Amino acid sequence: MSLSRSTGSALPPLSPTTRSTIRRGARRARTDRAELYAVLDAGMVCHVGIVLDGAPVVLPTAYSRGHGDQADTLYLHGSTGAASLRAAAAGAPLCVTVTHVDGVVYARSVFHHSLNYRSAVVHGRARLVTDPEEKLAALQAIVDNVAPGSWEHARRPTRKELAATAVLAVPLAEASLKVRTGPPGDDEEDVIAGSRWAGVLPMHTVFDAPIPCPLLLEGTPVPTHVAARLTSRS
Amino acid sequence: MSLSRSTGSALPPLSPTTRSTIRRGARRARTDRAELYAVLDAGMVCHVGIVLDGAPVVLPTAYSRGHGDQADTLYLHGSTGAASLRAAAAGAPLCVTVTHVDGVVYARSVFHHSLNYRSAVVHGRARLVTDPEEKLAALQAIVDNVAPGSWEHARRPTRKELAATAVLAVPLAEASLKVRTGPPGDDEEDVIAGSRWAGVLPMHTVFDAPIPCPLLLEGTPVPTHVAARLTSRS
Repeated sequence: MSLSRSTGSALPPLSPTTRSTIRRGARRARTDRAELYAVLDAGMVCHVGIVLDGAPVVLPTAYSRGHGDQADTLYLHGSTGAASLRAAAAGAPLCVTVTHVDGVVYARSVFHHSLNYRSAVVHGRARLVTDPEEKLAALQAIVDNVAPGSWEHARRPTRKELAATAVLAVPLAEASLKVRTGPPGDDEEDVIAGSRWAGVLPMHTVFDAPIPCPLLLEGTPVPTHVAARLTSRS
Repeated sequence: MSLSRSTGSALPPLSPTTRSTIRRGARRARTDRAELYAVLDAGMVCHVGIVLDGAPVVLPTAYSRGHGDQADTLYLHGSTGAASLRAAAAGAPLCVTVTHVDGVVYARSVFHHSLNYRSAVVHGRARLVTDPEEKLAALQAIVDNVAPGSWEHARRPTRKELAATAVLAVPLAEASLKVRTGPPGDDEEDVIAGSRWAGVLPMHTVFDAPIPCPLLLEGTPVPTHVAARLTSRS
């Protein structure tokens, strides 16, 4: 998480609307904006849902929360030619979901098996970003989120590349957060019966050794901003 | 991937409809049913999109492809009380997406930065599973997928637990698969310029040491079906 990001503490807590009110497993609902932002900032890929021809379409895409003044905005980008992006830019409602699976919950009963997870669901309509400064900052935020250090290391976008890229801004106004942590919630009878193992098998994502591009000059060293990720948790 | 699962080779290749035809990045589209199934079988959590009150809702949930005769069916489950599940059971169109992020692609230009990924997108309508035998087999398939070995180890569902659980069957008839692998696709000028590192930082999910339930009798050993996952890639 970038230090330049506000945790949004000046904003009120998430005020759930009808659709952002968690009804199933309400004890897992969180209403703290900082917690929502932490879940968003811990991810690289979201799943965007949009309605095309009356049916839902769910596609994965990279994203980032904005920096500084735009900390309450979620940015998405894509080709200007993509149908889903065009529909979103035209004002169709969308849903952006970010999920981290943190572990498998082994219960004493099949029924109480579960997953530990953090899942943020953002509802809203997107705004097509047309201001060149905001667009560049949004693209930088996405690159900083997916490949920190690359904005400084790699060639910056040309006018033509910028023109081929659409950036969408989704306000972080209507959102819900659901989190499950901890051991299984078994029935008392099953706990008393006592013979079956129960617990959590945690899981997380790791980076493996970088694979240099075959077109790279031999001996080109792996830069620090890439090598540093090997020892960090994604 | 369970050996009991057919790779669906007797079925025709995926025949894309208008909405399952990949237009952006068409070179990344795959049309082999076995490849689609491999991507589905490698995941535990999908993102289900459904339209509620005219707006899309995207929620994460566990899933499994069916076993045996039901290898061409994707099963989802949830509480009978969940609004999204009720809408899907009533025949609303849905979209089920499974995504694996395999690596960060560092290019010489910001513009060509990318992710390596495998993403399966299934379109269709769900059927509420009412046949008790199919329902139990579907739940077993989901448990086998998320927590292999638990169906044998844990207490099986009671009638009451089964009644509280809804199972949906989504036919694997209309689907698309998009895969990106390999090094960055930089522009020739950037490759010739030559000074910037480029390559792929692979990523994958690992399991950590199991955390026993605090209510477990001390010394209860971690069973093989759990311990075995520590050395496997998820």
